[in-house]
Amino acid sequence: MVKKLIEGIKRTEAPIVVGLDPKVDFVPKRLLDKAIAEHGESAEAVAQAFFEFNKEIVDNIYDLVPAVKPQIAMYEQFGIPGLIAFKKTVDYCHEKGLIVIGDVKRGDIGSTSESYALAHLGGTQVGNTLVNGFDEDFATVNPYLGSDGVKPFIDVCNKFDKGIFVLVKTSNPSSGELQDKIADGKPLYETVGALVEEWGQASMDGAYSNVGAVVGATYPEQGKILRDIMPHAFILVPGYGAQGGKGSDLVHFFDKDGLGAIVNSSRGIIAAWKNEKYGDPSKELLGDAARKAVIDMKEDINGALGR
Amino acid sequence: MVKKLIEGIKRTEAPIVVGLDPKVDFVPKRLLDKAIAEHGESAEAVAQAFFEFNKEIVDNIYDLVPAVKPQIAMYEQFGIPGLIAFKKTVDYCHEKGLIVIGDVKRGDIGSTSESYALAHLGGTQVGNTLVNGFDEDFATVNPYLGSDGVKPFIDVCNKFDKGIFVLVKTSNPSSGELQDKIADGKPLYETVGALVEEWGQASMDGAYSNVGAVVGATYPEQGKILRDIMPHAFILVPGYGAQGGKGSDLVHFFDKDGLGAIVNSSRGIIAAWKNEKYGDPSKELLGDAARKAVIDMKEDINGALGR
Repeated sequence: MVKKLIEGIKRTEAPIVVGLDPKVDFVPKRLLDKAIAEHGESAEAVAQAFFEFNKEIVDNIYDLVPAVKPQIAMYEQFGIPGLIAFKKTVDYCHEKGLIVIGDVKRGDIGSTSESYALAHLGGTQVGNTLVNGFDEDFATVNPYLGSDGVKPFIDVCNKFDKGIFVLVKTSNPSSGELQDKIADGKPLYETVGALVEEWGQASMDGAYSNVGAVVGATYPEQGKILRDIMPHAFILVPGYGAQGGKGSDLVHFFDKDGLGAIVNSSRGIIAAWKNEKYGDPSKELLGDAARKAVIDMKEDINGALGR
Repeated sequence: MVKKLIEGIKRTEAPIVVGLDPKVDFVPKRLLDKAIAEHGESAEAVAQAFFEFNKEIVDNIYDLVPAVKPQIAMYEQFGIPGLIAFKKTVDYCHEKGLIVIGDVKRGDIGSTSESYALAHLGGTQVGNTLVNGFDEDFATVNPYLGSDGVKPFIDVCNKFDKGIFVLVKTSNPSSGELQDKIADGKPLYETVGALVEEWGQASMDGAYSNVGAVVGATYPEQGKILRDIMPHAFILVPGYGAQGGKGSDLVHFFDKDGLGAIVNSSRGIIAAWKNEKYGDPSKELLGDAARKAVIDMKEDINGALGR
């Protein structure tokens, strides 16, 4: 699957993934009012508004980027109706030719991780029928339980040609509390990075493996070190834009060919219509503003990479 | 919420939680055949069978134990229908007076953790209506992202009187790969244990806090140390039974009053009907075998605790 992601990045010239992380505050009033008129003040209304919100964004950016990354927590917050909107979003993005990175941060003991992997990346045989769960292309995975929590994901990746991004150094302010602890003479994120490189040997797919890593744009120095420790791991980089990361911070996450990393932006794109830079907020130009924000981000990152 | 859990443990004299982690292999043929006859070979069939399976177990054990712990991965594996069965299970257990520990192992950066917390333990205001997600009583939380990934859960616990169990030392064989790394002169799980104790100060509820810890029965020595490091954290203990933990391993997880811990068993109870010890497997005595297995577990643990 990482080969397909790289093809998409080359085709669009955009190492960019758009985070589809809807919040009620980001949804234009016209969409929310319509949904509440149809479903009342309910999870069903929010779910409908979230899907319409995503659809309008995707319709305006699907030709510019290779991938989207819906954050499942935003949908899970609204229970079953929310998760139906998540699944509809995954399917709609697939229809538009986008690769879908499920930002699910799952991870458990072996047999349970297998269930999560089948839920998000595979399917389960029921009699003679293969039953899919959410069917994303990549999932994010939490490594705190060690190899036996991660390997079931890799087995499923190999069976269904999918991929994962393992949390190595996350973008949030307190990520260092555990991830930066020095053990065996190096920070824990380096140990996890070395494990990612090792795990990836079992799932090579061209120059990179299907086992990637999450490293926050907010930690550029660590990104540089991790790029060296994990030569075969594609890096998913959150934290660009609203969280503070800039194009110039990202240079060392990429390899010498300008590949090896894909940068996520959520709020900076999906809430761009609320930013006067992209037009009068009262006009609620959701799709148009998202498109302009993606083009700006692409210029920022490609400029920093000298192309 | 931990006060309510302790009351339940005292009432039933059982520091036991039953893990409702259905797998197709555990479901008696009569339930699976009926579901497939009604829904074909589909996720809907598995979901119906899982709910009927859980219901038969719960109907036979709800008077013996204070709590159940459904593992959401088992349901998520079957997509939306699976998660509908999860939610029906939560609601049915509440009807029967049981406390529900959602074994969801969520955790993310701050704003996203808030969504997960609201999804599982709280609710979201939509206009004038409070919309609930899954509405468990406790949730398990992964600490790899540090304080700002955990604190939103604590805020929601305080607002809705709920609780969490933070992963400290998990029961699986490779849990030591990261959790046992020595940093600052001690294993990482001790650092996480100290954080759990610190976080819990913001959510005291009687002698214990609503911020508990997960420590595997398979690591009794570590359980003893962690009991001392976290005097206000209730310990959720997985790994009893099928994973290898015995009653005698558990003594040091408890405080001097025989409280402070609750032990989970999943397979040993929900698949007891497949064990000849509890009757002829061909008779598929699901509920009856589960009841007998709970009574055996209660005797084993209370015996080890000298009561």
